[in-house]
Amino acid sequence: MEPRISFVTLGVSDLDRATRFYAEGLRLPRLKSPPSVSFFELGRTWLALYPRHLLAADAGVAAAGSGFPGFALAHNVRSEQDADRLLEEVAAAGGRIVKPARPTDWGGYAGYFADPDGFLWEVAWNPRFPHV
Amino acid sequence: MEPRISFVTLGVSDLDRATRFYAEGLRLPRLKSPPSVSFFELGRTWLALYPRHLLAADAGVAAAGSGFPGFALAHNVRSEQDADRLLEEVAAAGGRIVKPARPTDWGGYAGYFADPDGFLWEVAWNPRFPHV
Repeated sequence: MEPRISFVTLGVSDLDRATRFYAEGLRLPRLKSPPSVSFFELGRTWLALYPRHLLAADAGVAAAGSGFPGFALAHNVRSEQDADRLLEEVAAAGGRIVKPARPTDWGGYAGYFADPDGFLWEVAWNPRFPHV
Repeated sequence: MEPRISFVTLGVSDLDRATRFYAEGLRLPRLKSPPSVSFFELGRTWLALYPRHLLAADAGVAAAGSGFPGFALAHNVRSEQDADRLLEEVAAAGGRIVKPARPTDWGGYAGYFADPDGFLWEVAWNPRFPHV
């Protein structure tokens, strides 16, 4: 895997409240985004706020209980093929594939793996993310 | 707050196992570090692995229960004064100060705040971290 964290996505209980805190309270630079998610451009590692239950659903895990850490890291790649290839490498390295990569409703291609502690990484091709 | 995530620190249950996964499995570039922590240089946002109970203790929160998210983000600053100033701004913005900044055993100066969902941010001055 190339040394890159593309996103830190926090699963929040109240998106408006969290967005106000980061945008108005901390004055971080917010990107234009659809109403269901808030993005902040923090150098090459962007911060995303997303409702907790939707983040769990996106990864295909249960939001309740201790199996969902409540956030996810993302590693973006340059093509759909690179996403598939990286997930194969991760599986060979003992990572658990939580969701194989497939087309997303936002026009990209993404899957998830979990590290040995259950921390989630999304592996994504996103045609609009510039830092890959 | 300047737009920067300096570290993502994952609180892990078995540091050797997690370090092997990221260093040997995913082949991320590991930095020289003391035995109690593993650092990986991922661009300007570094990944740290640290025992979960020690991470909770560092933030001054209980490791058990739902109050500890199991990981922390860090925002590094250029001086001790900048750390104090930022934590004051965060408190004024409605962030909860979990631990006021003070000298650390690794030669820096750091405190923690929590966002409205309880996600932890360390605000740190670290004389050895280059990307501030």
